[in-house]
Amino acid sequence: MRIGVMTSGGDCPGLNAVIRSVVHRAVDVHGDEVIGIEDGYLGLIEQRARPLGHDDVTGLLTRGGTVLGSSRVEHHRIHQAVDRAAELAAGLGIDALIAIGGDGTFTAARMFCEAGLPVVGVPKTIDNDVSATDVSFGFDTAVSVATEAVDRLKTTAESHQRVMVVEVMGREAGWIALEAGMAGGAHAILLPEKPFDIEAVCVMIEERFARRKKFAIVVVAEGAQPAPGTLRLDPGRVDQYGHRRFGGLGTRLAVELEHWLGKEARPVILGHTQRGGPPTARDRVLASRFGWHAVEAVHKGAFGWFTALRGTLVELATLSDAVAAPNTVPLHRMLEAEAVL
Amino acid sequence: MRIGVMTSGGDCPGLNAVIRSVVHRAVDVHGDEVIGIEDGYLGLIEQRARPLGHDDVTGLLTRGGTVLGSSRVEHHRIHQAVDRAAELAAGLGIDALIAIGGDGTFTAARMFCEAGLPVVGVPKTIDNDVSATDVSFGFDTAVSVATEAVDRLKTTAESHQRVMVVEVMGREAGWIALEAGMAGGAHAILLPEKPFDIEAVCVMIEERFARRKKFAIVVVAEGAQPAPGTLRLDPGRVDQYGHRRFGGLGTRLAVELEHWLGKEARPVILGHTQRGGPPTARDRVLASRFGWHAVEAVHKGAFGWFTALRGTLVELATLSDAVAAPNTVPLHRMLEAEAVL
Amino acid sequence: MRIGVMTSGGDCPGLNAVIRSVVHRAVDVHGDEVIGIEDGYLGLIEQRARPLGHDDVTGLLTRGGTVLGSSRVEHHRIHQAVDRAAELAAGLGIDALIAIGGDGTFTAARMFCEAGLPVVGVPKTIDNDVSATDVSFGFDTAVSVATEAVDRLKTTAESHQRVMVVEVMGREAGWIALEAGMAGGAHAILLPEKPFDIEAVCVMIEERFARRKKFAIVVVAEGAQPAPGTLRLDPGRVDQYGHRRFGGLGTRLAVELEHWLGKEARPVILGHTQRGGPPTARDRVLASRFGWHAVEAVHKGAFGWFTALRGTLVELATLSDAVAAPNTVPLHRMLEAEAVL
Amino acid sequence: MRIGVMTSGGDCPGLNAVIRSVVHRAVDVHGDEVIGIEDGYLGLIEQRARPLGHDDVTGLLTRGGTVLGSSRVEHHRIHQAVDRAAELAAGLGIDALIAIGGDGTFTAARMFCEAGLPVVGVPKTIDNDVSATDVSFGFDTAVSVATEAVDRLKTTAESHQRVMVVEVMGREAGWIALEAGMAGGAHAILLPEKPFDIEAVCVMIEERFARRKKFAIVVVAEGAQPAPGTLRLDPGRVDQYGHRRFGGLGTRLAVELEHWLGKEARPVILGHTQRGGPPTARDRVLASRFGWHAVEAVHKGAFGWFTALRGTLVELATLSDAVAAPNTVPLHRMLEAEAVL
Repeated sequence: MRIGVMTSGGDCPGLNAVIRSVVHRAVDVHGDEVIGIEDGYLGLIEQRARPLGHDDVTGLLTRGGTVLGSSRVEHHRIHQAVDRAAELAAGLGIDALIAIGGDGTFTAARMFCEAGLPVVGVPKTIDNDVSATDVSFGFDTAVSVATEAVDRLKTTAESHQRVMVVEVMGREAGWIALEAGMAGGAHAILLPEKPFDIEAVCVMIEERFARRKKFAIVVVAEGAQPAPGTLRLDPGRVDQYGHRRFGGLGTRLAVELEHWLGKEARPVILGHTQRGGPPTARDRVLASRFGWHAVEAVHKGAFGWFTALRGTLVELATLSDAVAAPNTVPLHRMLEAEAVL
Repeated sequence: MRIGVMTSGGDCPGLNAVIRSVVHRAVDVHGDEVIGIEDGYLGLIEQRARPLGHDDVTGLLTRGGTVLGSSRVEHHRIHQAVDRAAELAAGLGIDALIAIGGDGTFTAARMFCEAGLPVVGVPKTIDNDVSATDVSFGFDTAVSVATEAVDRLKTTAESHQRVMVVEVMGREAGWIALEAGMAGGAHAILLPEKPFDIEAVCVMIEERFARRKKFAIVVVAEGAQPAPGTLRLDPGRVDQYGHRRFGGLGTRLAVELEHWLGKEARPVILGHTQRGGPPTARDRVLASRFGWHAVEAVHKGAFGWFTALRGTLVELATLSDAVAAPNTVPLHRMLEAEAVL
Repeated sequence: MRIGVMTSGGDCPGLNAVIRSVVHRAVDVHGDEVIGIEDGYLGLIEQRARPLGHDDVTGLLTRGGTVLGSSRVEHHRIHQAVDRAAELAAGLGIDALIAIGGDGTFTAARMFCEAGLPVVGVPKTIDNDVSATDVSFGFDTAVSVATEAVDRLKTTAESHQRVMVVEVMGREAGWIALEAGMAGGAHAILLPEKPFDIEAVCVMIEERFARRKKFAIVVVAEGAQPAPGTLRLDPGRVDQYGHRRFGGLGTRLAVELEHWLGKEARPVILGHTQRGGPPTARDRVLASRFGWHAVEAVHKGAFGWFTALRGTLVELATLSDAVAAPNTVPLHRMLEAEAVL
Repeated sequence: MRIGVMTSGGDCPGLNAVIRSVVHRAVDVHGDEVIGIEDGYLGLIEQRARPLGHDDVTGLLTRGGTVLGSSRVEHHRIHQAVDRAAELAAGLGIDALIAIGGDGTFTAARMFCEAGLPVVGVPKTIDNDVSATDVSFGFDTAVSVATEAVDRLKTTAESHQRVMVVEVMGREAGWIALEAGMAGGAHAILLPEKPFDIEAVCVMIEERFARRKKFAIVVVAEGAQPAPGTLRLDPGRVDQYGHRRFGGLGTRLAVELEHWLGKEARPVILGHTQRGGPPTARDRVLASRFGWHAVEAVHKGAFGWFTALRGTLVELATLSDAVAAPNTVPLHRMLEAEAVL
């Protein structure tokens, strides 16, 4: 067979490990040809691809990012491309496509699948927001990076009796904040799933200081939401280059906390360090297993499915299950964290 | 309630995180008293214990080892103690015991439970050999340490065209070898679950060198077994201070490979570095969740049960399930690894 | 003798290692008493101190921050305290003071010394801006943290063909930017010592993209200065909560680069992660040596001097030499870096 | 000009960073051609080399080992080659050679230099045993790896009340043991420079246990020497595959300590993990500076010299100075460490 592989959406540690694993399994075991499509769906549309053999994937297991490149493509271009799905597949000479990506990638993959380009998905998400799999690769690395930052910030916060606000990734799902907060021993964890009351955060911090623990760590997901009306300083003053890109919630929260508490508060925005660099051991193993199973799924003809971790096993789930609803932090996980705070 | 907590068996990153989590949940939320029993069952027998409050567990989340100490106690002393179970509990004034340990600890815990000392278990194992839970804490840290070593050894092996034999922990279960081997991109992984043929290893290495990849990494579990008669050099010459403690299989394998291949081979025995130091973020989260759920189990009266990870949930399983058979690497996991080798 | 020890100014990995080393050398070898003064000069003024013995410094070698606390005290309070120097020393019963700090600390230390409170200094600086010593502890840790961030950002920049602007510490001295930039393989390094021309940075990046290296890493010290008139977007829009604290130059630079280049640019502000957490091995060794030599200096009566690294030796230099002028990056070091860019 | 560059002797983190820096400086700034000679002097003799341009050194800054390969060549082959020095240079068309290596490499380099092949040296040594430079690259990485291992071992030693013996590299110079021992807070450090008395080590450990610090860490250089007659167990039983390669001193010491102390002692032999993997930030900077200055030295005609760190400056020293005597740990450095033990 001739199998295309591509990476799509934001990058994530482990993408290259999947590519390597796909080539090892498909070329070395099944005798397939593997074609790497460049820059995600853009390369599919523009028919840019290159053959991938054993030597092309040497060293990829530990390398962050994606050697195939990635891109975000506008909806209407995707729809136009779906209409030419079979033609695009024929142009590259591929019998099937392994699409590594998140929600957006999978939504498009379903359309291509129905339009005659057979696709198997591999879930990729820093945020752990893909449903129907216990977890995907990249998340463990992001949590590790964020946890190490929290570890470092604790000693400096304590020395100077400060409040540190650490903003981590997570727009709709607060998994990184939850796990890095628990692993780092944060004193408050603010998630998109549950609007937060800044007054309650202030009360908690004041109680800590009253107990002579004169510092506090607040971990906040970039997508966390204040309960309406609770952030009272003029938001316009912070936000003009766009809430998301330059500072955003973490910075604003530090300003508010310093204002209301009368104690020094400092924001640290971890940003892109969470999605770069070598994957953790766990993410390398998971990415490698996903690549293996994706090739098997292609050979079984399981198109419209994606590789999913369920307990200790890698199984298959439908692309529809993945995109039905984002995987968000359930209440019982928040309760576990509260106990540790 | 008054709850005893103890750590038993070999140490493991995350033990202290469980202790901390038990204290936070029991003392702060339930208003329990928590008593830390020193040196595992030995402290129970000798009635050595100390109260644990919020301040006693500050800083424990990231600290390796166990502040309560641990020990290994002879079977007959355990049996004698079981006969006095109720008396020992009364002596310390505890209503229940949270026992953090592995197979041996759980076997004893069942006996104490039946003899009138109510016990909830928390599984702990570097080797990932406890059944009825997807995984336990400590394993991820061990795999991370071993993987980093393999990463480092690759560059030096390549520069000098050498074979490196990396011996990792795992007497009956080869999980560390499997995952560190996959994560490190090892070229052979030797597990206790499947006797290895050194000739096959030699053939693989020779093929690599023939393809101009002039180095190889072999990851071997300390408990891996050569197929009978395949290690041919005189074993007596290596082993006199005891196979397990001083070198053992990894060293012997390097000697054999160098002999049969005529290429330089070097052993690296990772040893105790795998079980020390701060837990990974993942192990901290898992240990904290286990502590939380162990306290809840005590309050529910779920004695004879232990906390188990099943998919994304922490549930309870019976101590009998844990000790029925060790959790070993199944064939399908080996196949996934072969594809990546 | 009875020796006071205190930490003053911003915290820095290795402070605790100095404290530990002072106690080990003074108490265990010389039979001195050591008194830890809390919160820097504030504790001296308020006469807050506690005895430090062998057990009080257990575990401090690897611990970030300072267990003695720190503070910044207004100039006039320092001057008032200097007038009462002998009285303050007598109140705590100390024969000498070991003051661990940077420029500000040393300037005050000179005054106390002349006013009758004998002081030996130990230099501490994240920024490496103390003169008359090759380097101080804390700097190596800061460079390591910043370099790891640059390493991680490279892969994500490359995958998305982006420009990453990494802002590191360094208000007057650009050492962290220089060394993290060299170690991370940055494509532009902007230092306070040399006003930068944003157009030149743009040209360099465009040439890289033209050579098909479609990403770039810019490392910028927080105190770097644009050549007058070269940042052309309205600065008022970025800076209202204070240039230093919330974003500052790195954010502004990313906005400008994106504007002028028409390519995606993202800022990452490393902030306080650079000054927290365990010191590197090198910083632990240097801090320990400084503590050892500070105690020896006290016993030699070398008041008004501080411990300085000169090549491989720890020697003594006068506090005046340290504060005469900040240690900034000389031209020849910039030239070495340019060759690597 | 046409410049050859080669790496020789044992590998070391930072070799690739030097190669990259040489290419950047020579090709991009001076317009030279650079030729990479394969496998050290062997490649010179066999005239195996390849051109190195900007693209060939992409990614080398962080990569351990040497992409040029290395080898050890017998003395008589070196002498034969020296007789053909000019011919070998002419064969490769090189005007000068940059030789990156240690003592052995430099000794040969002097001979080639005198015989008409102009050489500039760059010092490389894990052990820090090259004289006339404050330090060379690779050493900081080795110390970091060893220190992290000691950190990890401490918690497990404490939990089980054990003595841990950590064997690190260093045959003639004990620098790694000294610095990793100081940075890790070891309780005994045994160096080649000073024969050790095992009885004194036992006394120290017993005193620790008497003070209720019930564990100890001993860091020992592989080349440390027991005072005559002090290791009393039969050495023949340990050593048959060669003292150096398989276990050696660390293992033997653990056996002796366990025997004489009656306490559990465990050896950990760090081995090749110390010389592999990515260099620390400091080693990357130093390696890059050495490469820069080596190219400048070639252009100045400073043949027979090598790049040396002196304080904060990279200067030149003669190859004769480097090989006159190894750089060993002086008494005053041992005294500084004793204070911290």
